[in-house]
Amino acid sequence: MDEYVHTVQYYETDKMGVTHHSNYIRWMEEARVDFLARAGWDYKRLEDMGIVSAVVSVSCEFKRPTTFSDRITVYTRVTEFKGIVLVFGYEMKDAEGATVCTGTTSHAFLNSEGRPLSIRKKYPEIYEAFCRMTDAEG
Amino acid sequence: MDEYVHTVQYYETDKMGVTHHSNYIRWMEEARVDFLARAGWDYKRLEDMGIVSAVVSVSCEFKRPTTFSDRITVYTRVTEFKGIVLVFGYEMKDAEGATVCTGTTSHAFLNSEGRPLSIRKKYPEIYEAFCRMTDAEG
Amino acid sequence: MDEYVHTVQYYETDKMGVTHHSNYIRWMEEARVDFLARAGWDYKRLEDMGIVSAVVSVSCEFKRPTTFSDRITVYTRVTEFKGIVLVFGYEMKDAEGATVCTGTTSHAFLNSEGRPLSIRKKYPEIYEAFCRMTDAEG
Amino acid sequence: MDEYVHTVQYYETDKMGVTHHSNYIRWMEEARVDFLARAGWDYKRLEDMGIVSAVVSVSCEFKRPTTFSDRITVYTRVTEFKGIVLVFGYEMKDAEGATVCTGTTSHAFLNSEGRPLSIRKKYPEIYEAFCRMTDAEG
Repeated sequence: MDEYVHTVQYYETDKMGVTHHSNYIRWMEEARVDFLARAGWDYKRLEDMGIVSAVVSVSCEFKRPTTFSDRITVYTRVTEFKGIVLVFGYEMKDAEGATVCTGTTSHAFLNSEGRPLSIRKKYPEIYEAFCRMTDAEG
Repeated sequence: MDEYVHTVQYYETDKMGVTHHSNYIRWMEEARVDFLARAGWDYKRLEDMGIVSAVVSVSCEFKRPTTFSDRITVYTRVTEFKGIVLVFGYEMKDAEGATVCTGTTSHAFLNSEGRPLSIRKKYPEIYEAFCRMTDAEG
Repeated sequence: MDEYVHTVQYYETDKMGVTHHSNYIRWMEEARVDFLARAGWDYKRLEDMGIVSAVVSVSCEFKRPTTFSDRITVYTRVTEFKGIVLVFGYEMKDAEGATVCTGTTSHAFLNSEGRPLSIRKKYPEIYEAFCRMTDAEG
Repeated sequence: MDEYVHTVQYYETDKMGVTHHSNYIRWMEEARVDFLARAGWDYKRLEDMGIVSAVVSVSCEFKRPTTFSDRITVYTRVTEFKGIVLVFGYEMKDAEGATVCTGTTSHAFLNSEGRPLSIRKKYPEIYEAFCRMTDAEG
């Protein structure tokens, strides 16, 4: 499980005085980028191999509001991967350890022409790596 | 059903050449604000009555990429309301009528002290209005 | 002079209850895109010709705060063009006609390899068009 | 002089493949917030004292493009303060030490009713602190 810290910025708040909900979607991306980089499979490496990932779906449940200057820790893990769609789960906690948000994102892989790509068939090395990430959480 | 048009801005695209997925969450808000304003229950009116709405959850499925200068029509409807949580459903279509994204958001209501509010009990007029919005889609 | 209307979105406000200042930079882009499209030289047409424009500088003076649901009219004009750098000037007014913001942006042109491009030498047609836009304001 | 590091996020890039220019305005805010916090005068402390700061102007010159995953160091300093308007200067450098952007922001102070506030007259302690920040750069 990966821990990524995001400090809430002033420009991420809204007139209700709290973090605008759309930003949590962005923090999930920040955490996912960090997760893949630590696992040795950063976006750049994938893109250099001609592999593009596309977000297929996102979901987010907001448990508690956060606001400017809060330090939010995002815990990221791979919850499912069977060769086509990679699913991440996220849990975000504030400085007191209270869960502020949980979410999921799922991702498909495309080649440089934008066609769907079976990671399992075309890139067994990446397939194994993604599977290991998933297993590690089992 | 409400139709709201959003034209994709350059600053909403990302280096993959398409709209960054986080923006669809914002367009759902734009469309919801428009929906409520047309129904006579705009955010300002609710806030002036001391009613604050908080986003409880969002979900989004991305069907097709969109990009700069695309005109996206967002169709918004209330899919559920039983007095506490208001649920919206969204479908976004491009200029050719192809669905690019579907999503949902759910909302709770709070009083000005941040306490949960039963719209049904405290504001029967609004309760009736929200119910009628839901029924209209039945 | 081009008139472009932007309605302030909830997600553009911050915890001070007003529009976050970074958004005015984005509205200048929205208005500039609209200006060029009306003049027949939209971004897509330029990009299709292999011409990329890069923002060289921006400046913005904030006169009055704006907030959620305000309708802001952005008046855009070309203030200078001598063949290399295109300078836009902007004035934003609220619904009462009060100026809320003034700004400028300047833009250089690059070919598809990212090299600086003299519009005057390489694309006399565009050079003439940009000059006419400037003259029209004289 | 304060050093603040911002890593460019995927959602901050645009379809040209580089960081969208509006984000530099946000990074200046991130760096300024960090600067004031390190100096012991963070936004929260000022807001708790009933002091609100409003951005009066921003300017930015873009020297080199940056993109996803670049680590940008923002150097922040106070360039002018005579009791009313606080002016910050910023220089941003990439990992190789090349300047990618320079900018300035100026800020006025308001009381909780939104009226202009002379920091020098009303809050001599803060006045002294801001002056010392300026001197330190002389």
